[in-house]
Amino acid sequence: MKALMSFLFCACFLLLHGQTDANFIRKIYDEALTNQVAYENLRYLCKEIGPRLSGSKEANEAISWGETCLNGMNLDTVWKQEIKVTNWKRYRRAIVSMDINNTKHSIKGMALGGSIGTEGNTINAPIIEVESMDDLDSMSANEIKGKIVFINKPMDPKYIRTFKAYGACFMQRYKGASAIAQKGGVGLWLRSLSLWDDHEPHTGSMKYEDGIDKIPALAIGTSTADSLHELLKQNSIKGNMQLFCGPQADTISYNVIGEIRGREFPNEYIVIGGHLDSWDAGEGAHDDGAGIVQSMEVLRLFKSLNYTPKRSIRVILFMNEENGNAGGIAYAKRAKALNEVHLAGLESDRGGFTPQGFTYESKQNIVYDFSSWVELLKPYQINFIKKGYSGVDIHPLIDQGPLLFGYEPDSQRYFDYHHSDKDVFESVHPRELTLGAAAMTTLIYLIDKYGLSGQSN
Amino acid sequence: MKALMSFLFCACFLLLHGQTDANFIRKIYDEALTNQVAYENLRYLCKEIGPRLSGSKEANEAISWGETCLNGMNLDTVWKQEIKVTNWKRYRRAIVSMDINNTKHSIKGMALGGSIGTEGNTINAPIIEVESMDDLDSMSANEIKGKIVFINKPMDPKYIRTFKAYGACFMQRYKGASAIAQKGGVGLWLRSLSLWDDHEPHTGSMKYEDGIDKIPALAIGTSTADSLHELLKQNSIKGNMQLFCGPQADTISYNVIGEIRGREFPNEYIVIGGHLDSWDAGEGAHDDGAGIVQSMEVLRLFKSLNYTPKRSIRVILFMNEENGNAGGIAYAKRAKALNEVHLAGLESDRGGFTPQGFTYESKQNIVYDFSSWVELLKPYQINFIKKGYSGVDIHPLIDQGPLLFGYEPDSQRYFDYHHSDKDVFESVHPRELTLGAAAMTTLIYLIDKYGLSGQSN
Repeated sequence: MKALMSFLFCACFLLLHGQTDANFIRKIYDEALTNQVAYENLRYLCKEIGPRLSGSKEANEAISWGETCLNGMNLDTVWKQEIKVTNWKRYRRAIVSMDINNTKHSIKGMALGGSIGTEGNTINAPIIEVESMDDLDSMSANEIKGKIVFINKPMDPKYIRTFKAYGACFMQRYKGASAIAQKGGVGLWLRSLSLWDDHEPHTGSMKYEDGIDKIPALAIGTSTADSLHELLKQNSIKGNMQLFCGPQADTISYNVIGEIRGREFPNEYIVIGGHLDSWDAGEGAHDDGAGIVQSMEVLRLFKSLNYTPKRSIRVILFMNEENGNAGGIAYAKRAKALNEVHLAGLESDRGGFTPQGFTYESKQNIVYDFSSWVELLKPYQINFIKKGYSGVDIHPLIDQGPLLFGYEPDSQRYFDYHHSDKDVFESVHPRELTLGAAAMTTLIYLIDKYGLSGQSN
Repeated sequence: MKALMSFLFCACFLLLHGQTDANFIRKIYDEALTNQVAYENLRYLCKEIGPRLSGSKEANEAISWGETCLNGMNLDTVWKQEIKVTNWKRYRRAIVSMDINNTKHSIKGMALGGSIGTEGNTINAPIIEVESMDDLDSMSANEIKGKIVFINKPMDPKYIRTFKAYGACFMQRYKGASAIAQKGGVGLWLRSLSLWDDHEPHTGSMKYEDGIDKIPALAIGTSTADSLHELLKQNSIKGNMQLFCGPQADTISYNVIGEIRGREFPNEYIVIGGHLDSWDAGEGAHDDGAGIVQSMEVLRLFKSLNYTPKRSIRVILFMNEENGNAGGIAYAKRAKALNEVHLAGLESDRGGFTPQGFTYESKQNIVYDFSSWVELLKPYQINFIKKGYSGVDIHPLIDQGPLLFGYEPDSQRYFDYHHSDKDVFESVHPRELTLGAAAMTTLIYLIDKYGLSGQSN
């Protein structure tokens, strides 16, 4: 009966609103696909500014660029929200090698984000391989003491959504160093969190536990890890690692925010965003230049189609998602302090790939029936709006009651590039990126026009 | 009420069969994603054999390779079906240039498949641009006579499915030369059928109309076309074209066929295939090496999971899809002559990209309700089984009554590579390719297990 009711509701909705909406949605896609503005913005962000780690000169340039872009869009307000961000720096790339039978073999390694450096020294120690964090936990301090520990758990290729495979390995990067140090180990070599076979290291955040010695931590490519695994079967191998990086004093940075004031409910906010910062490898193209230019494209499309929203729509270029999330936390804090009512949020931070759908979450944990909206979006390759995570930047808003959406593109290629030198502009396809921006615009249009009451079931 | 009935049928189906099927389908994906056999087969086909135009030495090598692969799979029968194929050859790449203000500018051009050569001569003639075939039709013979006609209609980026944009431009490639020759034109320069901006020409089939002079025809890259368009606004330009290609006498070639005999209905056939031939540019990776290795993977997965089908399952590596379809036509003819009952066919010839769904067609034009199957496939990114075209190779079977399916991956990147030097192994992603193979295997498993009665509504 529920299916029948849902079908009838859906049929009525489409009958009443469908054609107008379908026409407007078609216009959104026509404009986006014809003019490719998001793609050209991404080219600038990646090629003219490049990677933009929180606190870096490039992050400041990206903030200025973001402000200029938004100022050029004839919005009602553009401003910067000051925040204090983590300021970890990599001065130069790591020098890493292995001693096998008295011969030194250089390999490619990259310090994890947040790792201490080696203070001009080289850590030289025997390498011991562990299969996983559980494996490490089960080993004695005697086995680990004085060693570089090589954590070699690969991402599981059997997951269809690669983010699940990433999630299952994330902790070895985030907490591996302290788990090793606790048993007297002197360094971490991590198999990169990627499903692609090559020698590219993938960096990413890590955290030292309070009260445990800090040891340097780096990632090696998946193929390097496979070679090392084979070599360790036959040889005792010593690792050499020199890392040139370390934490600096926190520094001032900014979220960049642009707003179109709502004509009917100006005090009801819908926010759209991605994060402007990136790791310092590659160009931060998929992570998350794509989300930034897609979010800006939503407002550009509204403007170019003369859509005047009922609610106030804000685009937020968040800062510091990669190593602290200061931007996301500060924005939510500000919203609460000002008693701003946030109806909904939407984040794009899963890459600029071909569209699949949207996921949503809320504090109330409500299941909504978005089938009529999905019907409108199906011709554009959006097949679901279902429960799931939204995004790191907007998630801190959740306690204030909004429904928070995450844009979900196809994930097959994401971890080939993620946090590595391969995450460059050329890895993003213009049509895939643009279809995402148009899908996001469509969802925001529907939320703005119909609100979110009447959707739950 | 139809929706409710459909829902109830779907619910009952899933309750009765769902768990067993879901488990088996999970095994299909686990095996496919873990071992990546299709991808390694594609590497061999592309890198060791390369492009394989009908009648070429490489096509013969591909036939031997296909036979060896199938022979290694412990099937019940493997055989070759002899066919006679078109035998057009390109001896070397075209030499193309433009004379602008007495200066010669070389450009990249590639003869269309089937074009005559220039017999050691250079065609030198003024270039006239037309926007489309309609534009050409409306022009007088006086305007066209003695000219090289540059057809510059771009594929429309507004189509979501890029095959529609291709379809809307196909005729200018296929019939452009004769339309020009009919008005006295001496050559065709075609804007490549691609949505990507670069200087790569994309070849493809063309046909000369009987009774009209044959003139040479080539493609130029989309960016070259854009430049030429701009230049023609200010300048009179002459084109120079030398094409080294032409038709040969038809030759003998083969479809390669492998079969697992059905244990319950051995005389009921389900066929799966792609085409082994390709154009002579690139490596025929997406078109259609992907379809070949995916089709073979279906039988390999059945074998490795010890699935013994009820019906006879055949994989067919068709020959000559690109310029004649002799393989597809001959196979259908043979099936008819032998009174073989074909229950279903499935073709993969839309690239090795991330999955979306399946389309189907039949002579009876029946609409089926595949919702219960789609539910089983949704966790694997298959969102529809709906009416639509199947594939060029299997389509000739349609009069004999089977339901014919086409595998439909995402199309956004397909025409970036199609029929060009960019269609190489590296343009195919292992996981995207493999998810397609697993989806195809799942569909064939369901057809084999449940048949196709009971699905229509």
